[in-house]
Amino acid sequence: MSSHASYEVLTVATVPTYIRSRPALARLVDTATLSVREVGDGNLNLVFVCRDAKGRGLCLKQALPYVRIVGESWPLTPARSAAEARSLDAALSACPELVPGFHGFDPKRFVIAMENLSEWTVWRAALNAGEIHRGVAGTMGEYVARMCFATSLFGLQPEAAHLRAAEAVNPELCRITEDVVFTEPYLEHEHNSYASGIASEVERLQRDERLVAEVGALKYRFMTDGQALIHGDLHTGSIMVRREEADRGSAKVIDGEFCFYGPVGFDLGALAGNYLLAYARGLALRRPAGFLSWVEGLPRETWDAFCAALRALWPSRAERFLSDGFLESWLEGVWHDAVGYAGCKAIRRIIGLAKVSDIQTLPPEEHRWAAAVVLRTASRWIAERNAIGTPDGLLAIARETAMDLER
Amino acid sequence: MSSHASYEVLTVATVPTYIRSRPALARLVDTATLSVREVGDGNLNLVFVCRDAKGRGLCLKQALPYVRIVGESWPLTPARSAAEARSLDAALSACPELVPGFHGFDPKRFVIAMENLSEWTVWRAALNAGEIHRGVAGTMGEYVARMCFATSLFGLQPEAAHLRAAEAVNPELCRITEDVVFTEPYLEHEHNSYASGIASEVERLQRDERLVAEVGALKYRFMTDGQALIHGDLHTGSIMVRREEADRGSAKVIDGEFCFYGPVGFDLGALAGNYLLAYARGLALRRPAGFLSWVEGLPRETWDAFCAALRALWPSRAERFLSDGFLESWLEGVWHDAVGYAGCKAIRRIIGLAKVSDIQTLPPEEHRWAAAVVLRTASRWIAERNAIGTPDGLLAIARETAMDLER
Repeated sequence: MSSHASYEVLTVATVPTYIRSRPALARLVDTATLSVREVGDGNLNLVFVCRDAKGRGLCLKQALPYVRIVGESWPLTPARSAAEARSLDAALSACPELVPGFHGFDPKRFVIAMENLSEWTVWRAALNAGEIHRGVAGTMGEYVARMCFATSLFGLQPEAAHLRAAEAVNPELCRITEDVVFTEPYLEHEHNSYASGIASEVERLQRDERLVAEVGALKYRFMTDGQALIHGDLHTGSIMVRREEADRGSAKVIDGEFCFYGPVGFDLGALAGNYLLAYARGLALRRPAGFLSWVEGLPRETWDAFCAALRALWPSRAERFLSDGFLESWLEGVWHDAVGYAGCKAIRRIIGLAKVSDIQTLPPEEHRWAAAVVLRTASRWIAERNAIGTPDGLLAIARETAMDLER
Repeated sequence: MSSHASYEVLTVATVPTYIRSRPALARLVDTATLSVREVGDGNLNLVFVCRDAKGRGLCLKQALPYVRIVGESWPLTPARSAAEARSLDAALSACPELVPGFHGFDPKRFVIAMENLSEWTVWRAALNAGEIHRGVAGTMGEYVARMCFATSLFGLQPEAAHLRAAEAVNPELCRITEDVVFTEPYLEHEHNSYASGIASEVERLQRDERLVAEVGALKYRFMTDGQALIHGDLHTGSIMVRREEADRGSAKVIDGEFCFYGPVGFDLGALAGNYLLAYARGLALRRPAGFLSWVEGLPRETWDAFCAALRALWPSRAERFLSDGFLESWLEGVWHDAVGYAGCKAIRRIIGLAKVSDIQTLPPEEHRWAAAVVLRTASRWIAERNAIGTPDGLLAIARETAMDLER
């Protein structure tokens, strides 16, 4: 158990007093008329949604010193709150409209105060419901580009970039990704579980030495290639969207506690891997063609917006040695990384720890089929990542795979 | 001027008292009979060689808070001493016999206490004199491999590797390399100077857009790719050899203040780039064939020893995901990096700040010719780095270039 275990955990009853003790927060809501709800899942964090009589809101997120999962006690330092605060702080200058308003971090009690997003929806839930939110995928490409530029050698003087990278080291959270994304799904491991109907698919994948070696190379780059402050967990459950603004691409990124200086392709891959999960669900449920073709276009939408935003920022870069030619070849490298990481992020959701509702809530037969589509597609992405030249190819591979596996 | 500028600078007269104030040092020599000489060049550091009546020795290296060079005052934090101590400390467990004995670091006065190497010779001086020291190049390959393994994900648990990388951040010293190795030689810059006879060679190089873009890509990797704690300045002037043990490959690496987590190929490239400088001098002075063919073999000797040492350590690696196949493809990447960095390290010695005696002490005509051989060879190394498959090819290119430029 962490030495922090003795800090005071907030409750619905103590939140108003806590807010009054922090002047910057006390200004935002009327604590005398505050209603407070705890909406976190209780495994990792407490999340308090507060609203006063005038309708002004505030959200407090407090990190717990452990995570209770798969039946075992797993201590996890609440210092991850500092990483989340760092991510929000970076976004404050890079792309403030793409994250919740940030009202400060309390490093003693590991509390982040931020804008209340209770009127927003988790994008994964919207995708699961078959909703089309135009523009969100593009907004996410822009988010990755603007965060990358602002925190890297592109937008910072070298000394500042090096110091920020050192400061942002996040080994405990990185270890989770290293284990659950890059290691456990490729071994027999107690964290793994999957529908018995796909056991032969899983076995084939785990025995594919070339694939496992490619995953190892991607893991090594994840662990050594400090390109920029990346989100580190940018799946569709870390993105909030607004139904009423569906056509404007409004979105806010949350849950930045996994941030560290890593390869930018990892964030883009997390998005693409989750588009695959949404697509497999859509195919399994025989969603309307309009929804499916919209999902098919998401990888390109994200990628094009990422490139466009970075090219737009490029003239203001800090280092002149970074030529236009450099950017184009850097983008090519990021693209191939992204394809590989997309595969890894999709596979872990089928085999390893922490499943996703896209697949888990399907009826048994559809679940088995969708899981097989994801595994086969994602394996090809990893193995063929250097040959896959455009984002259009990604879900085309899923479509082909789905036809091979026709029910 | 740094805020440390007020710390007390040692003098020949105050060294004995200083040693008495540090019990760990006072045990090593008899301060009552100590003779002290200051042998540093006074630009960056003070170096005191101490010897007592019984012949026991000690060396103290104190960092000055600035470097006075090219006529301007250049403040430089003495905290670089801490980086040098970190490098020595890492070597203490990785390869203690390949560095001077380390007797501790005084962070208040920026003093490193180490073994007295005054009976050793700087390898560059030995090379300049046409001396053959068999085995040293192999020892250097082994040094790079053992330091790499001990400080990286190969030999450390991931959390430890990440934390050590963050701790070892060294932006001020890295900035020097970023500027003088990767930037200034490719621009018109006040730090540049060269024999007027090679002005057209320099101009051609600086106008070669493809070359400059490749150097930019190498610079970016230097700045972002934290593979291991590298030496950061591993030229032949940072290597001490012993004449009397010429055939045993005895060597000790010094001056680790540029160390940080970077690409391992940078250290190997520094060695190869300096072999080129030694080779160009040897050709210019028409050294005996025995000397020249020995120098031609140095890149292979270093590379083979590097690979052999890493393969020998591989079975004890910390992370099982690092397969044998991973090692082989990682080595291939390091090799191509090394070829590129070798080119950069050779070019900066001809065009940029901080020249080397290999070339500077040649008579004018030989100087001009050797400088041209180095520039043309190094440019080809950078441009063709992904096509140069073996270490034998490196100085073969220099030989070809020398024939093209026949005097």
